Amino acid sequence: MTKHPIEALIDTADTAINEEDWDTLRAIYAEDAVLVVQPGRNAVGRDQIMTACRAIADYFGHSLDVQQKGMTILESGDTALVLANTRVASDNTEAEDRKATYVFKKHPTEGWQCVIDNSYGHDLVAAETR
Amino acid sequence: MTKHPIEALIDTADTAINEEDWDTLRAIYAEDAVLVVQPGRNAVGRDQIMTACRAIADYFGHSLDVQQKGMTILESGDTALVLANTRVASDNTEAEDRKATYVFKKHPTEGWQCVIDNSYGHDLVAAETR
Repeated sequence: MTKHPIEALIDTADTAINEEDWDTLRAIYAEDAVLVVQPGRNAVGRDQIMTACRAIADYFGHSLDVQQKGMTILESGDTALVLANTRVASDNTEAEDRKATYVFKKHPTEGWQCVIDNSYGHDLVAAETR
Repeated sequence: MTKHPIEALIDTADTAINEEDWDTLRAIYAEDAVLVVQPGRNAVGRDQIMTACRAIADYFGHSLDVQQKGMTILESGDTALVLANTRVASDNTEAEDRKATYVFKKHPTEGWQCVIDNSYGHDLVAAETR
């Protein structure tokens, strides 16, 4: 079965994160994208997102291994919701499974781009309503 | 605190569902919206969505009571991801708490509209990878 272009893009993003290939990663985010760095702390726009990604790589001792363990994509026109089981592992932390939610938008010339990157999924709601 | 316009819209949608006010509900969905009726079964477009909503109202014996018990909204430009704790109750079923994921898009003239309505959240991924 051919991969959905968004699934292929997420594969590319995971490889870029794991190899610290920042130029490739940067291009996957839309100019005004939002990344949830931690529940309650967001990076907004490509510059803030790349700064956050470098800090995350540091935090994980440059041994980050991000993989998707199953995903579902729901599309409506130029917008897509991705629900993914994301495994975050590294040499110095226990592997962690997250129920991630990503939103992608199809740019008129540049194709699908990530506009909202929330690897914490519903944990954000719990954090706010506690 | 003033409500986010999308939270207000979801309140309006919940009241419309509970009161079977189909015209109000229809206007909240974008023309090409997707509603997950059950994991693996989607209604696409306003007509299919309204048919599904009427069938759901029938199924719940016209006593459906949908409420949100906390939500988080992440926005990027004209796109927003909503993570919500959704309680679905009725006279003839046990109340069920769902971790819903909704995507809204800001229409140039009509304002925010729901483009993806998935009250099952990550249950879809589990259903596909079982």
